[in-house]
Order: sequence, then structure tokens, then C-alpha cells
Amino acid sequence: MARSAALSVIETDKKLSASAETLLDATAALLSQRSTFDVSLSEIAKRSGLNSALIKYYFGNKEGLFLALLERHARQEMDALKHLVEMPISADEKLKIHISGIINAYHRSPYLNRLIHFMIESAQPTSSGRVIEMFIKPMISVYESIINQGVTEGIFRRVDPALLYYSLVGSCDHIFHATYTIEPILHVARITDDLKRRYVAHVREIVLRGLAP
Amino acid sequence: MARSAALSVIETDKKLSASAETLLDATAALLSQRSTFDVSLSEIAKRSGLNSALIKYYFGNKEGLFLALLERHARQEMDALKHLVEMPISADEKLKIHISGIINAYHRSPYLNRLIHFMIESAQPTSSGRVIEMFIKPMISVYESIINQGVTEGIFRRVDPALLYYSLVGSCDHIFHATYTIEPILHVARITDDLKRRYVAHVREIVLRGLAP
Repeated sequence: MARSAALSVIETDKKLSASAETLLDATAALLSQRSTFDVSLSEIAKRSGLNSALIKYYFGNKEGLFLALLERHARQEMDALKHLVEMPISADEKLKIHISGIINAYHRSPYLNRLIHFMIESAQPTSSGRVIEMFIKPMISVYESIINQGVTEGIFRRVDPALLYYSLVGSCDHIFHATYTIEPILHVARITDDLKRRYVAHVREIVLRGLAP
Repeated sequence: MARSAALSVIETDKKLSASAETLLDATAALLSQRSTFDVSLSEIAKRSGLNSALIKYYFGNKEGLFLALLERHARQEMDALKHLVEMPISADEKLKIHISGIINAYHRSPYLNRLIHFMIESAQPTSSGRVIEMFIKPMISVYESIINQGVTEGIFRRVDPALLYYSLVGSCDHIFHATYTIEPILHVARITDDLKRRYVAHVREIVLRGLAP
């Protein structure tokens, strides 16, 4: 019940126009290339080929633009999560798919993890609250459902879904948060597909064994 | 051997004068009260009761001051880690103590986690490299030693110590990184001692079971 309420938040979002989508694509492309959020509205406009007045028209300001970008990610990711929960597979298979889903999302959009933190810590309380509603609460509801299923199937211990959220997402995101350490620590220039696969396997093993009764 | 080399970096640091220590205490106190690093040298001087010229004298600039604060933390934490590695107890007991050690360090110094990330991502490459040398490499060497001991004792699988570093530290630090989510998600105003204890127990169970052969 909690799950449906949280997930339905996502579905009420209005569809964006093609120009708004183009502006979000340009923002995503620019953020993927840098390690900070110091990107100007005129840079985004230039990259998109559109007038920067359109950013104000659609999103109000940079915070509104970032929030809309996160909302687009949330719609994709939460759709995927909803399908996952409804799949006729065991709870451990669901969690395995979810772990590679999170790590792949961070790998595809290297700014995603930092942007979620940035919006929660530094944005206006309304934006911060929105990020909590669109990402964190739906994920915890999904964890609750998967844990319940796993306990019923006799393959999981009962754990607090909110604590599992912090520990699991922290495990998945730390390697992306600390990209400057990759070269000195792991001796590769960036997170390659091979490293990503090894990390998915590592986190899956720890978490799945960690939840066994 | 790798471990001793990494740990010895810490021991060569020179002792700081009483005034320098006072300035670091004032910096730590101010950072504990805020969620950003926008703290001015004059605020730090005022809080310490010392002249701000002393900050320049001892540390050069704010980045030098922050780095010195992290070095002081590193000395304490790496001393504790060195003792832990040498204790005549089993590998799982060592890892349990270590997990509560990390979570307690973040709980005592709420800025510690953010400051490590900030210095790695936003500081000059020399500072960023220093943080990697003083925190991350010694920790991975310790993990290597504990994993080897656990494998010999038949209680751990062999896992990559660098990947364990990212997944374990990510698990421990995410709840502190996301302090603004605590109230809406966990329904307490801040990370209380009770919540901290529950989180330590949660992470310990996941990681210790996760490493079992």
C-alpha cells in the first residue's frame, strides 16, 4: 500500500515538450563531462541549440532544471523497479537484478549519484523533499516488498528496509562518488565495463549472503 | 609489507604546536555545526580566540587547514587500525570492531565523511593524493591483512580488498552523507545513539555474513 502510494507520485508527472527534453539531454551531457555542478544556463542553451530563455520558461532556474532531470531519471528507474517487483521470480533474483540496475544507472550517468546528494543537501527544502519522495521512499517500499517475499520464501532474514536502503545504496554508489581514487587504487584510468561487472558481482555476493537467514 | 609502508606515512608527520591544535579544534567545531565548507578563516580565528594570521602561518590557506585536520583524524584512526590488526583475535572480531569504529568516527565528527570526499574531488591534486595516501591505501592494506587472516581461519571467502573498501565504507558512510533524509525516512530528528547502534549491527551482519565462505 505504501509502495503504490509512493510509486504513484511518479506517474502524475506531466509529459515534457520536445524542447524541454532537449534541454535535459544537454544538461545530462554537460554534467557527464564534469565533476561539479558549475554549469551555466548559457552553456546548457548553447549545447542544446536552443535559447536560454526556454530554460527559464520550462524550469524557472538551474535548481528547477536539475530537479526535472532527476525526475526524468526517477520515472525511468522507478518504472523499472515496478516491473521488477511484479516479475514472477524469487526475491534473491530480484535483488540481484536491482543491484546491477543501480550500478549500471550510476555508470551510464556519472553525475546521478552526486546530483541526488547535491539536491538533498544543498537545494531548497521543497526540492530536497521531492528527491526523497521520488527516489528514496519508493526504493524503500520496494525493499520492504522484496524482503517480505524473501522471508516468505525462506531465503532472507528480516531486516529493516530503510537501513538496507542506506547500506545497499551506499555500497553501490561509493565507487562512483570516489572516481578520483580509481586510478591510484584500482590502477585503471576510469570505471571500465570490466571493473563495473566485478563490482556488481562483489556487491551482489556480499548483500545476498548478508541477507541469508 | 604494503601495509607497513602505507601506515608509516602517518608516523612521519610532525607534531603540531598547541596553537595549531587549537585552530584545528575550532575548525572541527565549526564544521560539525554546518552542512557546507563555507567557513571563513576569520570565523575560525574568532572561534579559536587566536589571530587569523596564525592560520596562514601554520597551514597556508583553508585547504591546508582542512588537510591538516584530516591528517589529525588519519593519525588517530590509523593508530587504532594498527592496534586492531595486531590484536590476538579472530578476523571476524577485527572486522566487527572496525565497522563500529568507522561508524562511530563519522558520528563523532559529522563533517569527516564529507570532508574526505570534498578533498578528494575538489582540492588540488597534491591534497587529493595525500588523502588517498593517508586514509584509503592504509585501510585497503588492513583489509588485505584481515581477509588473509579470515581465509586462513576458514571464516572468510577471498575477496578483493579494494572492492571491499568501496562497498564497506560506502555502507558505513551513506547514512551520514544523507543526514537530511533521516527525519523523513527514519522518523527521528538526527542520528541518535540508538539508531547508530542499530546501524552498526545491521552493517556488521550484512558484511560478516557476506564474507562467509
